[in-house]
Amino acid sequence: MKNLLEIGEGLCRDENVVIGYATERIDQRQPLSLGASARLRSGTVIYEGSIIGDHFATGHNVVIREANRIGDRVRVWSNTVIDYGCRIGSNVLIHCNVYIAQFTVIEDEVFIAPGTMVANDKYPLDKENLKGPTICRGARIGVNSTILPGIRIGRDAMIGAGSVVTRDVPDGMTWYGVPARDAG
Amino acid sequence: MKNLLEIGEGLCRDENVVIGYATERIDQRQPLSLGASARLRSGTVIYEGSIIGDHFATGHNVVIREANRIGDRVRVWSNTVIDYGCRIGSNVLIHCNVYIAQFTVIEDEVFIAPGTMVANDKYPLDKENLKGPTICRGARIGVNSTILPGIRIGRDAMIGAGSVVTRDVPDGMTWYGVPARDAG
Amino acid sequence: MKNLLEIGEGLCRDENVVIGYATERIDQRQPLSLGASARLRSGTVIYEGSIIGDHFATGHNVVIREANRIGDRVRVWSNTVIDYGCRIGSNVLIHCNVYIAQFTVIEDEVFIAPGTMVANDKYPLDKENLKGPTICRGARIGVNSTILPGIRIGRDAMIGAGSVVTRDVPDGMTWYGVPARDAG
Repeated sequence: MKNLLEIGEGLCRDENVVIGYATERIDQRQPLSLGASARLRSGTVIYEGSIIGDHFATGHNVVIREANRIGDRVRVWSNTVIDYGCRIGSNVLIHCNVYIAQFTVIEDEVFIAPGTMVANDKYPLDKENLKGPTICRGARIGVNSTILPGIRIGRDAMIGAGSVVTRDVPDGMTWYGVPARDAG
Repeated sequence: MKNLLEIGEGLCRDENVVIGYATERIDQRQPLSLGASARLRSGTVIYEGSIIGDHFATGHNVVIREANRIGDRVRVWSNTVIDYGCRIGSNVLIHCNVYIAQFTVIEDEVFIAPGTMVANDKYPLDKENLKGPTICRGARIGVNSTILPGIRIGRDAMIGAGSVVTRDVPDGMTWYGVPARDAG
Repeated sequence: MKNLLEIGEGLCRDENVVIGYATERIDQRQPLSLGASARLRSGTVIYEGSIIGDHFATGHNVVIREANRIGDRVRVWSNTVIDYGCRIGSNVLIHCNVYIAQFTVIEDEVFIAPGTMVANDKYPLDKENLKGPTICRGARIGVNSTILPGIRIGRDAMIGAGSVVTRDVPDGMTWYGVPARDAG
């Protein structure tokens, strides 16, 4: 299969950046489309098979797996991994040392602080029920949070640092703790 | 001292992979033995002085320190560090952004989810009492968990996301929380 | 602007190390000063505009941003990110997979265990109130801890694994939990 890359104008990449890395999930092999004015820092690896908008920026040692759809002006900072099959909106900032599980949905204007870990199986390795969370427009997730699968974090909701989010968070609310609850 | 490498057939390595990196712990200098059909992705560094089985696979930017014994079909995903002196069985999957402390024992068929952090000293820098946990056969550890030193996580036990495991977990049990307790 | 690098004698660097990486924060462009006998491992990126003492050592894939002041004999292990504008004393050990937020102050002899995440805004993206914590001389932070902004962790204080530190910790105390409290 031809593995076409479409890369927009104005790409700025450091040395030691890989664009269009081959996935071993053979049925997922698709071209990579990367928009204009991307800024990719050293150690970044972007797999084939994603569609990424304009002004995409990465820190160092970022891994973006295949089959992702990513909007415009998305920034992903150092040592973060975006696993495959996610949908990410525009104007999203995903900070350092974060892991975004397969099939996570992140809407526009979301901020995810360093060390956040997103799960997509209720129990580890429960492959029958893989379902990422949905983090709605404008939500902000504090450092080192844990987000369980299938959950909806509402629009403009805020999650305090170190929280474990096990239930849906309503729009506009601030929750924190283990498990996360309404901060009142 | 000669620093021999024994590398099995069928090695598949990306550019920017280091095999047999020299440790500064001079008394620990030993050859590296890496089995057949290894798959090492970009940014991976494997120190000298470990014995690793067949079909070993790494994600990107993985660090495997010295003096580890690792079985067959072990996969270690991106941005994970395995510190020195660990024993890891076969068919183990250690996901992204994990840290495995020195002297940790991980048996066959264990799954460790992203962001899990394993400690080996009861108090930070308590070098008198360095003792990793033992994670028994078939156990599964949820995302962003913290595992304290010297603990035994029983066979087929399951640890929920975001847990801090401070005591032994019996075989087959599901525990979660801070500190982790029987989920009942 | 000239971007001078001053690098002391005895530098030992692996391949694939970047020293003096250009920041995009244009007003922060300054020379980098790196002391004698640095040991920089593969994948390390040190930005321009920091002043770093002697015997600085990094693990693999470490990122040190600009405008930091770092003392002597500081070690930063693999996959850790030090963001910009921090002050770090001497004889500090920052272990693997850690994130240190902008404007954090870390005094001499501090130990920070793997996976620790430091925040500098009370709510995510609260740019009005960016203020890192102060981790005082000799304090030790356990694995996977979360440190909130503006907090003071006292001299020789100890923070247990998996804690979320939301208030000042007095000198010499051991605290743990979510939120962290006196261990009594």
